[in-house]
Amino acid sequence: MSSVYGGIDAGGTKFTCAVGTSPSDLRAEAQFATTTPTETIGRSIAFFKEQQVPLISIGIGSFGPVDLDPASPSFGHITTTPKSGWAHTDFVGMVQDALGIPVFIDTDVNAAALGEHQWGAAQSLDTFVYITVGTGIGGGGMVNGKLLHGLIHPEMGHMRIPHHWDDDPYSGCCPYHGDCLEGLASGRAMELRWGQQPDTLPTNHPAWELEARYLAMGLVNIICTLSPQRVIFGGGVMKQHKLLRLVQRYVQKLLNGYIQAHDILEEVDQYIVHPLLGKKSGVLGAIAMAAQFSR
Amino acid sequence: MSSVYGGIDAGGTKFTCAVGTSPSDLRAEAQFATTTPTETIGRSIAFFKEQQVPLISIGIGSFGPVDLDPASPSFGHITTTPKSGWAHTDFVGMVQDALGIPVFIDTDVNAAALGEHQWGAAQSLDTFVYITVGTGIGGGGMVNGKLLHGLIHPEMGHMRIPHHWDDDPYSGCCPYHGDCLEGLASGRAMELRWGQQPDTLPTNHPAWELEARYLAMGLVNIICTLSPQRVIFGGGVMKQHKLLRLVQRYVQKLLNGYIQAHDILEEVDQYIVHPLLGKKSGVLGAIAMAAQFSR
Repeated sequence: MSSVYGGIDAGGTKFTCAVGTSPSDLRAEAQFATTTPTETIGRSIAFFKEQQVPLISIGIGSFGPVDLDPASPSFGHITTTPKSGWAHTDFVGMVQDALGIPVFIDTDVNAAALGEHQWGAAQSLDTFVYITVGTGIGGGGMVNGKLLHGLIHPEMGHMRIPHHWDDDPYSGCCPYHGDCLEGLASGRAMELRWGQQPDTLPTNHPAWELEARYLAMGLVNIICTLSPQRVIFGGGVMKQHKLLRLVQRYVQKLLNGYIQAHDILEEVDQYIVHPLLGKKSGVLGAIAMAAQFSR
Repeated sequence: MSSVYGGIDAGGTKFTCAVGTSPSDLRAEAQFATTTPTETIGRSIAFFKEQQVPLISIGIGSFGPVDLDPASPSFGHITTTPKSGWAHTDFVGMVQDALGIPVFIDTDVNAAALGEHQWGAAQSLDTFVYITVGTGIGGGGMVNGKLLHGLIHPEMGHMRIPHHWDDDPYSGCCPYHGDCLEGLASGRAMELRWGQQPDTLPTNHPAWELEARYLAMGLVNIICTLSPQRVIFGGGVMKQHKLLRLVQRYVQKLLNGYIQAHDILEEVDQYIVHPLLGKKSGVLGAIAMAAQFSR
């Protein structure tokens, strides 16, 4: 019998759980809203317990910040999240105690990056970034062939970018930083600025140009810092049909020819892309993480 | 007879050349102003030709952007630099043709990072950043134990940060981006904004608080993107006695407790540091590069 793994894509808005080994071998899936830690993690545990096949291990891609230092007393805990009720939740401990199998954790965006590296838009690359623009903004990725951790893990959504005060008097919604990238350009920021959900804003609404300018600014900073070979943009807000194209255009405009790279100058539509695994990058990456560490 | 290497720290303002194997074994050094490519690279070549010991190879840490892709027809060339006369200079080719030994190249900041990793403030770290604040601003470093290259190489000085228009009407001096980090906070920007060289500005001049705020902003973006285990700040502007301490304070203030890392929250004076090798990080790193690739 082949080895089967469990994956949790733990987002701030919803959880996706799955069991399987690859995109073509997903044996079960479940999705539910992120409510309290007890209820949401409880539903994940119940889903894995229901499975007929014994699982080897579980991978978790979690919203954060998460403590990923195995030597830390709070390893596997969610730490300072502004998300109500979730700060200091022992995510790994709860799952491990309930299921009695090894549990591995990384950020949701590093998990999605791993999924895209294994089966999606980042195959064969060693340095790339995966950014999600949903309720919040997060970024992860690989550098020199390994997931990016460093001191803790990236928190790309919290970088500072120029605020276009002339066109945009909205002060930003990040409880820690006000008008950081997430504070200005997350789905939550769009909703608060325009008074409606981003997916209800028409294609010709000025919201999308402003959004593209902010996202491009963030991306330029990531390009200047990490020099990624590709950038993958996932998350609910990126579903707006024309947004990716606008971001590509603004990135070129902002870099202004300074970075002489064919991929940016000539093939930006293949440089800044949507995830190939769509909404499943995260949960598949969580499964890849479980498989990788269990080998 | 032991192996001896040559190193060039090719800055936009001055070149430093040296011959040796380590900080305790530097057999000769020379320094001269960066003028035209022919003259400056010519003087470097003459210095190496004068040496009695036969050199195994040469490492170059160069200002940039530099084409580091060995498969590219312009490999080893300086590409789009605003520095007059230097765009499209075949740096590696000129040195290799004149000396007939292998020549290796990386950015000046990656070379300095390598020097600090081998003998300085980044020993035993696998993910860290080296930033220089001189005439321009550059950043390099290692991620997961290897120097950061990715698509081309980092250009950290060209990230966008919020411009404090209220206190700072100066529009920025980057010919490509105006008020990017380098455009606002480089030595050149300070000189143009205040009408005098940064090293002549008194300690209590408001220039230093503004400078620290901009540098801290850039550093916060690097921390959010790369999650370095340490940040090393070199370059002439950083010699101002109190600047590093101001930057440390502003980084903590800007992050506002969001990143729960002991190193940032409790030991920022060991997290954001000066290079241990001082002005020699670059040329020693160039020697380390030559040695590493010649093994």
